Amino acid sequence: MKAKEVAQSILKGNRRSLAKAITLVESKRKEDRLEADLILKELLPHSGNSLRIGISGIPGVGKSSFIEVLGLELIKAGHKVAVLAVDPSSPISGGSILGDKTRMEELSQKDEAFIRPSPTTGSMGGVANKTRESIYLCEAAGYDIVLVETVGVGQSEYEVSSMVDLFTVLMVPNAGDELQGIKKGIIELADLLIINKADGDTLVLAENAKTQYQNALNIIKKERFWSPKVLTCSSIEKSGFEEIIKQFKSFREKANKEKHLTKHRLQQTKAWLKSLFQKDLIYLIEENESLLTQFQTIEAKVLNNELTAREGSMAMLNALRENIS
Amino acid sequence: MKAKEVAQSILKGNRRSLAKAITLVESKRKEDRLEADLILKELLPHSGNSLRIGISGIPGVGKSSFIEVLGLELIKAGHKVAVLAVDPSSPISGGSILGDKTRMEELSQKDEAFIRPSPTTGSMGGVANKTRESIYLCEAAGYDIVLVETVGVGQSEYEVSSMVDLFTVLMVPNAGDELQGIKKGIIELADLLIINKADGDTLVLAENAKTQYQNALNIIKKERFWSPKVLTCSSIEKSGFEEIIKQFKSFREKANKEKHLTKHRLQQTKAWLKSLFQKDLIYLIEENESLLTQFQTIEAKVLNNELTAREGSMAMLNALRENIS
Repeated sequence: MKAKEVAQSILKGNRRSLAKAITLVESKRKEDRLEADLILKELLPHSGNSLRIGISGIPGVGKSSFIEVLGLELIKAGHKVAVLAVDPSSPISGGSILGDKTRMEELSQKDEAFIRPSPTTGSMGGVANKTRESIYLCEAAGYDIVLVETVGVGQSEYEVSSMVDLFTVLMVPNAGDELQGIKKGIIELADLLIINKADGDTLVLAENAKTQYQNALNIIKKERFWSPKVLTCSSIEKSGFEEIIKQFKSFREKANKEKHLTKHRLQQTKAWLKSLFQKDLIYLIEENESLLTQFQTIEAKVLNNELTAREGSMAMLNALRENIS
Repeated sequence: MKAKEVAQSILKGNRRSLAKAITLVESKRKEDRLEADLILKELLPHSGNSLRIGISGIPGVGKSSFIEVLGLELIKAGHKVAVLAVDPSSPISGGSILGDKTRMEELSQKDEAFIRPSPTTGSMGGVANKTRESIYLCEAAGYDIVLVETVGVGQSEYEVSSMVDLFTVLMVPNAGDELQGIKKGIIELADLLIINKADGDTLVLAENAKTQYQNALNIIKKERFWSPKVLTCSSIEKSGFEEIIKQFKSFREKANKEKHLTKHRLQQTKAWLKSLFQKDLIYLIEENESLLTQFQTIEAKVLNNELTAREGSMAMLNALRENIS
């Protein structure tokens, strides 16, 4: 099937074509990437029509169950929901201790839902870039809510927050943990902070946590159209989701009014282009053998304390100048 | 004073000269940076004679008191101790909620200690690079233990772990928090995991936490000469520090035996050179007006969906080729 045909099929909402295009986007093969670009180019003008929602939370917080319930409720409210996962493998062992496997059994069987598990390989930035392009594809296929799930290990939060409109942090109540558990950087990214497990024995804890987090958020003043909100929910009792969806709607309305989404997304695209260019440039260097040899000589001098790292860097710049034109 | 004289003075252990050189390293002025490079070049052959220890831990964990006690104990054991702080400002508000201000009153008055607070400005990478060069300067001045302190907000841990020999994570005991609180990536970086506040009401909690973390660490198998250890301590009761220092010594001995330190540091320097070069290259581009104009035109097309980001990136590479030779 040609790129144009795949694109047409995606525009009609064909899920197999969508899945295939995402596979091309995630592929490491050059031909696949070129094909993916052709499809993307057809579809870019049709992208942008969703609310992009990041859902972050450390393993054990109940993200899968939360997304399962949330997705079903969103579908009930008339939405089409795509779920993309960003699950960067650890830089050291590459595995997961806790085995936070996404399941979402009921949601995955719905016609109005499209669930795509994590790309399993690639660098952090690579995964993030692929996820960004997958968002565009899902939008072209008619999904008007795109949930981007991420595990809370730090860097991935920033990556995800740089590609969504609304960033949600999911937490569990934990007595005595409120202050220590605040990962400051992450909390500051949050537009919605949702305390899960507001049920049974942990209901009171959840309510207390809500108050404490709201206080913490009040300290961080963002000069924006939106003040971060703290909500509670229970995935088991399926409670609190109506309010969450109401807040999504309210965010979207306020953002539209302020033309925030458009501006925000343009900024995001700019940053993305910059990071892509940096990566491509490094790739270009690594493919040039003569340049690589010169770089290795300079590196050896730095390792041998004959040059400071800064002098080495400057020498590398000069070598680049002479080699890539 | 000329660079050579400053360098000579630092080699004699002069603290004012050391502080001055670090200020030059941290400066954003070009002349200062050139001066710093001259000093560094003199001193590089005299650097490398310390055990570089990273100390990470989220705000509230008691890092300052811990370092105060640890530093005093190290001095008692005959060491000279430098303390450098890496405290990246938040990407959003730039401030600190909890006000985790470093004090270390007693330690700071010791002749055998040199304490340098965080660089207050600059990008994350910038701060990290400055800290790396500051380590070299401290080593040349005769400090045989360099403690590099970092707040536990994610990215900075990776930066710090890339410049130290031994990475320590400080934690507090917290019932029920053990599994959830495990920041997997960080734990995997740890060579020593130290549970603080092993005293009074939290003594039992600390012992329990020790067991649980040791179990977690056993799951993560590192193919290395060193297996991560879990220890407890109390900064109030000044207990547990003898064992911590014993572990430092043991780490150093084993590392020397395996020639680990040399190999590890060479790898770190390679990575550092690479990141420096990437930053310098971006700087070069930003200084070239004609190139910048072309980049802006390309960017506008990407923002307008006329080009995919990947095509934009390729067009930027071509523009670079034509402009920087």
